[in-house]
Amino acid sequence: MNERSANYELLTPVSFLERTARVYPDKDAIVNGDRRHTYGEFHNRVHRLAQGLKNAGIHKGDKVAVICANTPHMLEAHFAVPLIGAVLVPVNFRLTASEVAYILNHSRSKAVFVDNEFADLVKPKIHEIPDLRFSVNICDIDDSTPLDGMEYEAFLAGASDEPVVCDVDDERGVISINYTSGTTGKPKGVMCHHRGAYLNALGEALEFSINYESVYLWTLPMFHCNGWCFPWTVTAVGATHVCLRRATPEEIFRLIQKENVTHMCGAPTVLITMTSFPGARDVKLKRKLSVITAAAPPAPTVIENIEDLGAEVEHVYGLTEVYGPHSICANQIAWKDLPAEERARLKARQGVPYVTAQFMEVVDPESMNPVPWDGETLGEIVMRGNNVMLGYYRQDEATEEAFKGGWFHSGDLAVVHPDGYVEIRDRAKDIIISGGENISSVEVERVIYRHPDVLEAAIIGVPHEKWGEVPKAFIVVKPGTNPSEQDIIAFCRERLARFKVPKSVEFGDLPKTATGKVMKNELRNREWAGRDKKVN
Amino acid sequence: MNERSANYELLTPVSFLERTARVYPDKDAIVNGDRRHTYGEFHNRVHRLAQGLKNAGIHKGDKVAVICANTPHMLEAHFAVPLIGAVLVPVNFRLTASEVAYILNHSRSKAVFVDNEFADLVKPKIHEIPDLRFSVNICDIDDSTPLDGMEYEAFLAGASDEPVVCDVDDERGVISINYTSGTTGKPKGVMCHHRGAYLNALGEALEFSINYESVYLWTLPMFHCNGWCFPWTVTAVGATHVCLRRATPEEIFRLIQKENVTHMCGAPTVLITMTSFPGARDVKLKRKLSVITAAAPPAPTVIENIEDLGAEVEHVYGLTEVYGPHSICANQIAWKDLPAEERARLKARQGVPYVTAQFMEVVDPESMNPVPWDGETLGEIVMRGNNVMLGYYRQDEATEEAFKGGWFHSGDLAVVHPDGYVEIRDRAKDIIISGGENISSVEVERVIYRHPDVLEAAIIGVPHEKWGEVPKAFIVVKPGTNPSEQDIIAFCRERLARFKVPKSVEFGDLPKTATGKVMKNELRNREWAGRDKKVN
Repeated sequence: MNERSANYELLTPVSFLERTARVYPDKDAIVNGDRRHTYGEFHNRVHRLAQGLKNAGIHKGDKVAVICANTPHMLEAHFAVPLIGAVLVPVNFRLTASEVAYILNHSRSKAVFVDNEFADLVKPKIHEIPDLRFSVNICDIDDSTPLDGMEYEAFLAGASDEPVVCDVDDERGVISINYTSGTTGKPKGVMCHHRGAYLNALGEALEFSINYESVYLWTLPMFHCNGWCFPWTVTAVGATHVCLRRATPEEIFRLIQKENVTHMCGAPTVLITMTSFPGARDVKLKRKLSVITAAAPPAPTVIENIEDLGAEVEHVYGLTEVYGPHSICANQIAWKDLPAEERARLKARQGVPYVTAQFMEVVDPESMNPVPWDGETLGEIVMRGNNVMLGYYRQDEATEEAFKGGWFHSGDLAVVHPDGYVEIRDRAKDIIISGGENISSVEVERVIYRHPDVLEAAIIGVPHEKWGEVPKAFIVVKPGTNPSEQDIIAFCRERLARFKVPKSVEFGDLPKTATGKVMKNELRNREWAGRDKKVN
Repeated sequence: MNERSANYELLTPVSFLERTARVYPDKDAIVNGDRRHTYGEFHNRVHRLAQGLKNAGIHKGDKVAVICANTPHMLEAHFAVPLIGAVLVPVNFRLTASEVAYILNHSRSKAVFVDNEFADLVKPKIHEIPDLRFSVNICDIDDSTPLDGMEYEAFLAGASDEPVVCDVDDERGVISINYTSGTTGKPKGVMCHHRGAYLNALGEALEFSINYESVYLWTLPMFHCNGWCFPWTVTAVGATHVCLRRATPEEIFRLIQKENVTHMCGAPTVLITMTSFPGARDVKLKRKLSVITAAAPPAPTVIENIEDLGAEVEHVYGLTEVYGPHSICANQIAWKDLPAEERARLKARQGVPYVTAQFMEVVDPESMNPVPWDGETLGEIVMRGNNVMLGYYRQDEATEEAFKGGWFHSGDLAVVHPDGYVEIRDRAKDIIISGGENISSVEVERVIYRHPDVLEAAIIGVPHEKWGEVPKAFIVVKPGTNPSEQDIIAFCRERLARFKVPKSVEFGDLPKTATGKVMKNELRNREWAGRDKKVN
């Protein structure tokens, strides 16, 4: 029954480009510096890329890896690879050559497309990837072709522009394998499917009212859970993609103004970079700008600062395992009349499931019973829905573990407030247990963020003879300020229960993942070296 | 594999209410005169209704008919009936008692909910409907209970408010059977399914940017293809439903102002009623109002007049067989700079498929080959996608006929313009063949609509000795005007090829279906009485 017919069509985000290229053939699809592609051109290039892949022997189910910045090539790959029923493997270009080789091998990728800036991530190990048949050089910033194999434009030029018929025969077939930037251990390959990507892409458009007049700035890396499905979302509605190779505040603000950007996504660290940029106050927004943020729980202060620029913050929460965001701190009409600080506090919560995501609960991980909506009882966030991964590629045990009790387990600890909004207290592994008391590192961080000299902060538990562990603060200060350890501790004393106050403070940079998450495990490893605390 | 699990959830619009009741429990869901229901109350009432149906012996797959105005009861039925896996049969209250009995019998409805205003449609024939087990009286305007059986509120009060677990086990299972208001012949029962309704409902929200701040006015009858899925759309995003028993211009304008309406749907006849209302010019719109119109192709003049009121017209096209709209005349940024008349002309076209509808072509119905995009070659509009009906209930032959060649056949004749936008020239049966030349009745009507004294117009072919048939105009004039037959003919002569000019004009009212379509067959029957022209 579920074969393509007059009244049944597979749900796949690939279909979005077909429709948009028909409706808006002459509209700007992609802006990349001075170059602009219309939707007609985008469509043509996608079909050439698909033909090229077929000519090169890529078949349905084959894996195609891409290591590339936020450029048109990555958008093209998001359509061309699934169009022929192949599987996209986007690779984080901030990994090491060994990690990249691990991913290419583990995913059994048959081809790899590499921006020449990142060729050194592949070249040294390329002979240790036996399944790899060919590589293609993406020359976005210069003409060098460091890898054996064609240059991307030549690869396209060599293929016919005869339209390729979409070769997907199961809407729950794998569309991409996204390796988590896992802070520890080997990366795990999250399998996403066409149906989930289609629904999630529509979900994003719905939650943020993205339409044909929208302009989307690519601050979020596309390699990171397929850029939260935005390659498909933006294309679905015929909006414009604005590419961005390096997310510096200068470039972000220049493009926001030049292209009249309406939407962008980013981890709080991107927001912090923006608000601490000296030129930020001079920026004039001609259109409403929505900044969609997730990843680490944002401090309310960060939300307030972005709103001071005239932008609106939308706060979402998710993981690679749920194709990016799964919940949104959905606005309530009554919040508009609240003072900015109070509103920011409400919006810093992880909120409620997307319309298209449907199920998110906070449960006792043993009994799987939901916790009461009291804003106090801690439980684990679990999710269900069409946008939950199929599983981890070639890791059945990890998959089974993740799906215990029929829900996907996020590993995040949270409470549910009386209004039904979920708020994360901590990653399960980041909770600090001091003298038997739980301390939420997030709670302590939020207090520290309110200190006027603090740019960024991270709290971890460090060894302590009497209490087992105690909180320690790692702080990045704002330029031109110089707070002392005692200043910070005193500030916390006034605002926190004594056992939650950091016992020591260290100033300096914070180690971060490619997506802007602070790598607390690295800080912990340093502090706990030689001890037997289990460090995840 | 496709059983509910952590990563698979059936697509059903029933799920929307569950999510919205969680996120916006205290927000206005439904306004009905002075009464207002929050989403919490709406949810509670839906679950009571579902429990009541179960208690009364309604099982999965059973049909439940509803004959009711645009009141909260009809919204509740759109969720409660499918929630228990039963099938909703909304019945047009403008039919005759015999037609209603035919539908109740043909659908094998086990229960019928009837607004007491329409009890006379059911009562005389109720003993001729053997499958019917019980009826429920809906007392929206008075307390009378003309039918045997309970009163609606008592039916709800008697049921527990224990939440009902959604009992749908196939997303392509039937959610409703919608009988077409067919201008001739027996009505046909269009079977819609959960997946199609879910996707179409999201599609509406996406195309018209409907969100939690939107307010939707119920000018379109809910019995008409489930109100184009808007009971589910408006609920999905947590917007507010404003009920409307009788779509008079006074009530429409009063509610637009009182409730700050942002969206409404209606046939061009509703738009004409609005723009010809004397008080229309005094209306102050505090918020942007989108008027979504379809059914008969609207004359550009009608679009211009509505825009003069400060509202925006969105023009869509579809049929009951595709759950309401399938295509939209999608706006292009460049149109904004065009003169109003030119823009209205472009927007009067049927356009391009919805993002979620995907496929609409104009083909030669014999070869099924697409016509060239030349704005001239006539073909039939055919559709495919998840929002195409499963078929006609218990009418296999008609179903097969509708799906010839693997597409749904609309019966509408159209051209495709060079920009890919489809424009209807006529219903296949409304085309006039005069001396071997095709005349589009729609083309002639559009010219006549530009005459300053014309309120409404319909053109049909009437018998003629020499030419076989010739066009005749039926015209409703604007109040206070008195054009002559010769005025109209002279006006057309200046603007149309001679063979297309109506040879005669008749002034008076036009016969219409419940959804505002002019019943041209009735005009034709009159003119062709005793002749052997095949009248469909």
